[in-house]
Amino acid sequence: MSVPEFSHAFREQLQDLFRWRRDVRHFNRDPVPEPVLDDLLRTACLAPSVGLSEPWRFVRVDDPGRRAAVREDFARCNARALADHMGADALNYARLKLAGLDDAPHHLAVLSHPDPTQGRGLGRGTMPQTTTWSTVMAIHTFWLAATAVGVGVGWVSIIDPERIKTVLDVDPALELVAYLCVGYPAQPASTPELERRGWERRAPERREWIQR
Amino acid sequence: MSVPEFSHAFREQLQDLFRWRRDVRHFNRDPVPEPVLDDLLRTACLAPSVGLSEPWRFVRVDDPGRRAAVREDFARCNARALADHMGADALNYARLKLAGLDDAPHHLAVLSHPDPTQGRGLGRGTMPQTTTWSTVMAIHTFWLAATAVGVGVGWVSIIDPERIKTVLDVDPALELVAYLCVGYPAQPASTPELERRGWERRAPERREWIQR
Repeated sequence: MSVPEFSHAFREQLQDLFRWRRDVRHFNRDPVPEPVLDDLLRTACLAPSVGLSEPWRFVRVDDPGRRAAVREDFARCNARALADHMGADALNYARLKLAGLDDAPHHLAVLSHPDPTQGRGLGRGTMPQTTTWSTVMAIHTFWLAATAVGVGVGWVSIIDPERIKTVLDVDPALELVAYLCVGYPAQPASTPELERRGWERRAPERREWIQR
Repeated sequence: MSVPEFSHAFREQLQDLFRWRRDVRHFNRDPVPEPVLDDLLRTACLAPSVGLSEPWRFVRVDDPGRRAAVREDFARCNARALADHMGADALNYARLKLAGLDDAPHHLAVLSHPDPTQGRGLGRGTMPQTTTWSTVMAIHTFWLAATAVGVGVGWVSIIDPERIKTVLDVDPALELVAYLCVGYPAQPASTPELERRGWERRAPERREWIQR
């Protein structure tokens, strides 16, 4: 197989993909066909991983009892962590995620093996976090591929990772990296919801090099 | 602006992009034009970030003295961390990175602010690592966009992050996430070099869901 040439048109659309990849909070409830989800998982596994260790573990959470327990944990963490020191404003933004948890037809937990035998340790001696970071890139790959087929992803991080691992009854040695809501978005948008609602804006100075 | 429709052809090419995004170890020495590098940085900043915090800091390392000090740190970490317990085999694979450090026309360090005021703390109360993970996704975005314009990226992780921060004279509060070699690849390939050379193979079971 020869090296693909990526055309100007492709690169323009790739920019659109990056621009339209959103953290989705509003889903319609139609399920995503299983073959589409399976394709997204296979694509996610093309992500880079340190030493080719593939430390990611993708969990489908379908059980209503487990989902309810996750929702409850989110509500507890959100109330406790935010109400005190961030104000009602933050509480409202974070609550948008609750709608996502309620409406998204699919819930995925993504975990990471902190010390996989696969990869034989290469490349992570001095920076062991690169293992977890590999899983983060698999999640990002899933997210981009999902966007390209019109599927939205919302990353829920206001949870107690240890509690969620118990709820999901997974190997306690694994690290919980993300809890994802997945489904067709109700409101596609090219601007982050946090920006549209005035929470925060992108900073132009981030787009400049620091020189050394 | 209306939601883009991503065509079947685009999605096929996106698969190619994921498949051909490699951890590049062999570069030719031709510099990448500055406007191309600037575009890649701007694209990287379209990555998701928790609370829209944009914690990434991209550093261009051009000074020959600093580059030599990084190379020296790599050689020391590689010798110490790997020779003992991983054998000559690992040492050889890791040494491929030395060629990358020597030949790549551009060196980028990517750092992350662990507690940015931007984003106002939203979403990282219980999982503060999501800040670093945002920077990891910016690196991955840079990597994919680079691949689309024929530019290769090699991630060097066999370094002492604290030492590198000193070499680069950056704010000690920042976290070093990656040291990247950037340039045109000498040998494009669709298979990871570690797989071609027999170090490790992808595991088919990673591409299956765990059900809960």
